[in-house]
Amino acid sequence: MRLYVTPASPWVRRVRVTILELGIEDRFEFVQTRWPHSWGTQTVAMPADFTVATPVMRIPALVTDTVTLTDSHAICDYLNAEFGSFRLLAREGAARWRALATIAVANGVLEAQIMRRAELLRADKERSNDFIAKMRDRTIRCFAALETHLPTFGDTFDLAQITTAVACGYDDWRYGPDWRGAAPKLAAWYDQVAQRPSMKATEPAETPQR
Amino acid sequence: MRLYVTPASPWVRRVRVTILELGIEDRFEFVQTRWPHSWGTQTVAMPADFTVATPVMRIPALVTDTVTLTDSHAICDYLNAEFGSFRLLAREGAARWRALATIAVANGVLEAQIMRRAELLRADKERSNDFIAKMRDRTIRCFAALETHLPTFGDTFDLAQITTAVACGYDDWRYGPDWRGAAPKLAAWYDQVAQRPSMKATEPAETPQR
Repeated sequence: MRLYVTPASPWVRRVRVTILELGIEDRFEFVQTRWPHSWGTQTVAMPADFTVATPVMRIPALVTDTVTLTDSHAICDYLNAEFGSFRLLAREGAARWRALATIAVANGVLEAQIMRRAELLRADKERSNDFIAKMRDRTIRCFAALETHLPTFGDTFDLAQITTAVACGYDDWRYGPDWRGAAPKLAAWYDQVAQRPSMKATEPAETPQR
Repeated sequence: MRLYVTPASPWVRRVRVTILELGIEDRFEFVQTRWPHSWGTQTVAMPADFTVATPVMRIPALVTDTVTLTDSHAICDYLNAEFGSFRLLAREGAARWRALATIAVANGVLEAQIMRRAELLRADKERSNDFIAKMRDRTIRCFAALETHLPTFGDTFDLAQITTAVACGYDDWRYGPDWRGAAPKLAAWYDQVAQRPSMKATEPAETPQR
């Protein structure tokens, strides 16, 4: 399978941590993508293999012999079912819905983090400081909500925990420790799971420019 | 169950069509939300019940006795499993991944449609015409890709078809028929499924202002 990645994307990191937690990294060809900073507002020319793989033209994208999946939700669902025996996300029932409730809020954080980043990359005359504040407000609200989900977290570092941890890690890396004041117990939990080999191996770094 | 909705949102329409196709509308209390046009760039004050239901503060949000789900992916997964016997999306295996491949591309359209709308609502001095063009380009690319998925569509108006049809309907309503030139066979398919009672009952309209 071919997985298109970048080191900065929390959506990619979610998939990479999933792969490491499942111990299936040998099955993948990881293709590093490069992006100009103009990605925030412009359609970026990309290599033909990438354009063919995903008409959405975002990462991650997974190409297998039988299917092409172009968002991290679908990719994690696929990997968990096909290679994880549903260990990281229950196939159905209350355990699945409890996890999806957490994942939906953590996804809200990831989306706000990336939209805030895209806004910061805009030219001054096209930038909305209100929008940046809106995305920060959403992030802080969602981190506070995720803290209330902590008692539902089980022993397995599953997709709910992975997505939450990736959200924490991105804010630390890109925007600093502000979120920690809104969710101190979550921050303490994150500091523990950040030591897992899957998290250490996927710490964010700037995406290669071109 | 309580479902927070608006008539303009394609994410909401996807859930409403799913509910109608499953014949379970009697189980829901539909709560109409109202939004000022400043939602595109500002954190909007909302009624307390909505704010408690969803820290992401977007629609749709589903509140049941046991779980709160705050995105349409999770809500559709839940409704299909708990009330649809997996009729609208296979529980696992090749049929599920084929559907998720289509859904991921159709989701790419929905997201681009909403981001383009939010951009159009910005003040002149904060608007990026490049970004509007980027979202339009993505939409057109994804519609062309969805046309190639048509041969995989089965007899059931399932979640892949529902999401695709909602994407077609939103572009028709908000942006006009431009997309049809990029995907004429998809447009012909859409004109058929648009006649289904579930689609007729959920045609988009402007969201109530406040």
